[in-house]
Amino acid sequence: MKITDITTTPVAFRDPPLLNSVGVHEPWALRTIVEVHTDEGITGLGESYGDIGHLTRMRTAAPALLGLDVHALNEMHSRIATALGGEAGSDRHGLTGPLTVESTVDRVFSPFEVACWDIRGKALGRPVSDLLGGAVRTAVPYSAYLFYKWAAHPGAEPDEFGEALDPAGIVEQARMLVERHGFGSIKLKGGVYPPDQEIEAIHALREAFPDHPLRLDPNAAWTPETSLKVAEELDGIVEYLEDPAPDIDGMAEVAARAPMPLATNMCVIAFEHIARSVEVDAVQVILSDHHYWGGLSRSKELAAICRTFGIGLSMHSNSHLGISLAAMTHLAAATPNLNYACDTHYPWNVADDVITTPFTFVDGAIPVPTTPGLGVELDRDALARLAENYRTCGLVQRDDTGYMQKHDPSYERKRPRW
Amino acid sequence: MKITDITTTPVAFRDPPLLNSVGVHEPWALRTIVEVHTDEGITGLGESYGDIGHLTRMRTAAPALLGLDVHALNEMHSRIATALGGEAGSDRHGLTGPLTVESTVDRVFSPFEVACWDIRGKALGRPVSDLLGGAVRTAVPYSAYLFYKWAAHPGAEPDEFGEALDPAGIVEQARMLVERHGFGSIKLKGGVYPPDQEIEAIHALREAFPDHPLRLDPNAAWTPETSLKVAEELDGIVEYLEDPAPDIDGMAEVAARAPMPLATNMCVIAFEHIARSVEVDAVQVILSDHHYWGGLSRSKELAAICRTFGIGLSMHSNSHLGISLAAMTHLAAATPNLNYACDTHYPWNVADDVITTPFTFVDGAIPVPTTPGLGVELDRDALARLAENYRTCGLVQRDDTGYMQKHDPSYERKRPRW
Repeated sequence: MKITDITTTPVAFRDPPLLNSVGVHEPWALRTIVEVHTDEGITGLGESYGDIGHLTRMRTAAPALLGLDVHALNEMHSRIATALGGEAGSDRHGLTGPLTVESTVDRVFSPFEVACWDIRGKALGRPVSDLLGGAVRTAVPYSAYLFYKWAAHPGAEPDEFGEALDPAGIVEQARMLVERHGFGSIKLKGGVYPPDQEIEAIHALREAFPDHPLRLDPNAAWTPETSLKVAEELDGIVEYLEDPAPDIDGMAEVAARAPMPLATNMCVIAFEHIARSVEVDAVQVILSDHHYWGGLSRSKELAAICRTFGIGLSMHSNSHLGISLAAMTHLAAATPNLNYACDTHYPWNVADDVITTPFTFVDGAIPVPTTPGLGVELDRDALARLAENYRTCGLVQRDDTGYMQKHDPSYERKRPRW
Repeated sequence: MKITDITTTPVAFRDPPLLNSVGVHEPWALRTIVEVHTDEGITGLGESYGDIGHLTRMRTAAPALLGLDVHALNEMHSRIATALGGEAGSDRHGLTGPLTVESTVDRVFSPFEVACWDIRGKALGRPVSDLLGGAVRTAVPYSAYLFYKWAAHPGAEPDEFGEALDPAGIVEQARMLVERHGFGSIKLKGGVYPPDQEIEAIHALREAFPDHPLRLDPNAAWTPETSLKVAEELDGIVEYLEDPAPDIDGMAEVAARAPMPLATNMCVIAFEHIARSVEVDAVQVILSDHHYWGGLSRSKELAAICRTFGIGLSMHSNSHLGISLAAMTHLAAATPNLNYACDTHYPWNVADDVITTPFTFVDGAIPVPTTPGLGVELDRDALARLAENYRTCGLVQRDDTGYMQKHDPSYERKRPRW
């Protein structure tokens, strides 16, 4: 079954003003919807970043994939590497670590690879999880992903989520998300306020949710010294501490004395980072993400590496739509050693999706789709609407820092900040 | 597509008197042919060891797999683990390292997993290599696998391969194998004679075959000190030295000073061994083998680990039949970083196979089958004949040492010997 055509459609969907260590989410989140068409009339779906550099790279690579069989994933990866000609992407928004040539290939490869699994599942009448070794769970638990947030984007009406700028606001937000979706784990995006305030928020969450596993992720906003102080304060309270300090060596310094496991989606974000991280025991949990680990089969390889080296495995998320959530769910379902609740931004997106039946959390989990392929169908009207958003929203590159600076010209991006 | 029945048929096929560090091959090599039947009438094939302990474990596990979908490989692995109840197999023949509970599960899992890939390929009309990411080569190169050998089993007529007990005999054997099959790489099974004699054989091979990559494998017959002496002598002559000394720490000691990479199929033979080996840089090449690394998908995971940690990847062989060769070839074809010629004992088996069309080497390589599944078909008459061999040959457990001692009562198994 050969690839005859590939469509890449950048889209934008509304995003609340969620705060993080580099600024604040802009009113629009960008994604790209990838459609891979075949000579047998089956189309597969993929979803990836919408930033212009990445979009351009996907569009550079796509023509090289025409004529390729949907099973030829090795060849697909190598054609993409050739098409990109050794270019390394950049992390302009500042929320991940440095990209390498190889990890840039993995990022571009991912949505095409996912689309091929979708096609193969549809052709076979089997869900993608079956093709990945079979689901070991019928539903994949996700965590309530809390953010400090403004009540509204500047100049706009307050959104339905309300303001959360202190421990009480965070607890209220957690109650709302847990009540709506049934989440059994809670993650707070930190790195926004001085560590003491965020520790206070975690203590408030622990009091309000005595049995929920908790996590805190300051996106490398702290020095190793600060990280260790926080780690001591949160001993026995968080199941893991996520990217407290920058870089593998900084994390290793913290890990050597922190009482809880450290997790990352910033310092180990490519296969090339793993050996060094293992050598210095920098992280004890890797937050997998098929969007940058090279799709579903390479994410399974990452899982095998984690299993082999005794590293925990959880799952990272950026703002995303339903195609990504489907892929994340199939992958997590078919990965036995993915034993933490996964992260997802999906609950923050209440208005827009590109699939006909957006997902609903059941007891904090997404039931693994049992229909063929990813189990989602493209809503053409919605896609057209979100593509129009992209054309009119004026954004082509995520820039949380620039957006923050528009409203607070004194704001500086600084890592570590405390 | 569900598993309705599983047949495990132990077979025996004629094997020449090949010498190694623990003795000599008996007149019969033992294997088990696994047939997995499904409710859609498609049957898949697997091949594994024929030793009684392993056969018993496969038979213990098989009933637990009935009713399972052929895609449910994760569940299959976990059911086998449960069925085996924490038993660890033993290495009675002494040619591999210690087995763990987990690696025993991987060994039992392997033939069933391979059979499931065969079934899925047949159902889909695609070769197994396609399901593993697609072939990156159209033919898989194998090495000429040389052995010191007697002219005949004691009391029998000389076999067609002749005697090879000195450098001249080894070179003659190499010429025969290279001429017959076109091999472009040469491996000598050593550990039989004092190291100086084996070094002499390698020099003779180098002279006779100036451009063939060479390897020497004494199966851990040497102390680290002896290994280093050999390594110095063979600097620039062998592409890798295989298992010179016993155990991860012994290999690490050699690796620290040896000028060439060290390879293993003895000290790193399970996922549990990898972390320690990486930590001390014990081996630079792992000889993969789907029969004990848990089938094809786990062997792909091993390949990803090797890629990630900069470890070379080659392929190990035991005496085997055509089903194994098919699986090895599909796996190697779909593994981009398997860059060495693979080992195989197949050329030593000139009389017996269980497939209708035994494989033929073309320029030292096996063309990757392009027909559905593994691309091999069971020859029922041959299977019956080889099964009858098993019943009448009197062997149920490989025992190279015992066989040697029958002919030389003073022979002792000793590791290291020199």
